[in-house]
Amino acid sequence: MKMKVVALAGGTGSAKLLRGLSRAKIDLTVVANVGDNFWAYGLLVCPDVDIAMYTLAGIADRERGWGIAGDTFAVLSQLGRLGAETWFRLGDMDMAASLLRTGYLRRGLTLTQATAKLAERLGVNDKILPATDDSLQTYVRTPRGLLHLQEFWVREKGRPRPIGVEYRGASRAKPTRDVGEALARADRVIVCPANPITSIGPMLAMRGFERLLSRAGGRVVALSPMVGKKPFSGPAGKLMKAEGLRPDSAGVARRYSRFLDAIVIDRGDIPLAEEIERTRVSCVLSDTRMRSLSDGERLARELLRA
Amino acid sequence: MKMKVVALAGGTGSAKLLRGLSRAKIDLTVVANVGDNFWAYGLLVCPDVDIAMYTLAGIADRERGWGIAGDTFAVLSQLGRLGAETWFRLGDMDMAASLLRTGYLRRGLTLTQATAKLAERLGVNDKILPATDDSLQTYVRTPRGLLHLQEFWVREKGRPRPIGVEYRGASRAKPTRDVGEALARADRVIVCPANPITSIGPMLAMRGFERLLSRAGGRVVALSPMVGKKPFSGPAGKLMKAEGLRPDSAGVARRYSRFLDAIVIDRGDIPLAEEIERTRVSCVLSDTRMRSLSDGERLARELLRA
Repeated sequence: MKMKVVALAGGTGSAKLLRGLSRAKIDLTVVANVGDNFWAYGLLVCPDVDIAMYTLAGIADRERGWGIAGDTFAVLSQLGRLGAETWFRLGDMDMAASLLRTGYLRRGLTLTQATAKLAERLGVNDKILPATDDSLQTYVRTPRGLLHLQEFWVREKGRPRPIGVEYRGASRAKPTRDVGEALARADRVIVCPANPITSIGPMLAMRGFERLLSRAGGRVVALSPMVGKKPFSGPAGKLMKAEGLRPDSAGVARRYSRFLDAIVIDRGDIPLAEEIERTRVSCVLSDTRMRSLSDGERLARELLRA
Repeated sequence: MKMKVVALAGGTGSAKLLRGLSRAKIDLTVVANVGDNFWAYGLLVCPDVDIAMYTLAGIADRERGWGIAGDTFAVLSQLGRLGAETWFRLGDMDMAASLLRTGYLRRGLTLTQATAKLAERLGVNDKILPATDDSLQTYVRTPRGLLHLQEFWVREKGRPRPIGVEYRGASRAKPTRDVGEALARADRVIVCPANPITSIGPMLAMRGFERLLSRAGGRVVALSPMVGKKPFSGPAGKLMKAEGLRPDSAGVARRYSRFLDAIVIDRGDIPLAEEIERTRVSCVLSDTRMRSLSDGERLARELLRA
């Protein structure tokens, strides 16, 4: 029997690890963040669900960290000529998935069902589950007002000072039954190197999600997204500070301490190990930077063993 | 003061004349067919409105007779990979207009307002008015059941034998106030060389539309879409027969005889002239084939004089 592994995943950083995990002989279920879902041009765009899907289908754009390799932007260019805002860079092939997904949802399918249909057509063998089928979106409080995560990070390029984060819909959103079952059956739960505030945070903000993790079948291990005070990618540092967390691997471990058994941190962060162990999280040292596919495969193995 | 001209227009054949009319020093309003509007991938596609818009913006694909010159099909290809039907060939740039239009409609704009916004952004100086803001779609009765015009003509390539035509929504659809005013003020109304059943038919099926034409400010003149028994393009012949009309210029004149003052027919159809005059429609002979832009300009001048 293959080891049942559930990976909680966000965007770019997570995708690198998912690539490694997908090469392992395991039964992999990805629970994807939906907090960055965004309505653009009347379409529901799910960047984190899609990057997991494209990564596992082998068509993700690895250079850029989002979207499909070789995608074009003909629709977006014309939308610009027609007077629409085009800061949200949705590629043509990428748009096709959002068109179909939006259609499926309008016909009454859940996001879970819509994702399964798309992933199947792309030949994905692993399972991809949106964390919830309910509306749950991440907003960032800034001196310029409340911004959707995509407005904050993509449109405003992360420049406004974040004061805090709101997970809209979190009080009503529920993890899906599929997610609950996958976690209960899991031999191992892996928290990908994702932004703890904007990628894993929305899941944790749902009532009952942390309890599902505490009761997960196997150990819960994380790969820290931070090396020193820098994240692999994205705005993790600023947002962790805004949410009262130290922007380093110790802050990540603290945020996850209620359910985490172990965390893999970068060797250079050895001074943080003692502090992390004090939160009853085991600390494993490694080279956590993923420059190549083999780095991802090695880290996947370490997380499966940790 | 420029002559105020209203052109009733359908698709490919109409576009050739519109190109000629747009070069004339006139105040041009196009009343565009909506009977071929079609929902594809959750988007309202309006082929006849758009071909008028692209033609007057100078970006239409003249070779193909639909869509935008140089358009690509990246979204459509990916939709196909994702398991969607792709018989409706919607280009990437073309799709951008439908995306924005659908968004405008969802936000409560009328199709007239949505069209005006798109046309303005494309630099169109002439006015383009959808014949109605209400739902009005052409269906073809066949031995294989009732098919939307696009299903009949594009998906089934016009192969099923048409038994008749239904204009869905015609009993409730009303010509817009803008259309009514344009016709009342018109110094000349031109019926483009369009399919009398599927392009002009939906307009005529609306209660009150023929009365608007009868009361139009100026003379109503048509350019016949038929040369002998053949239409310029599209399925006019078969559908005219299915609707009990002879598939030639005399059949066209008969269909329009309640409001038409004159019709320009091809010189080769001179044997039909006497029959047409008997329906009290004046007959003008010309070379009606439009092979080049200058043919369209010449015919535009003849229609403005007729």
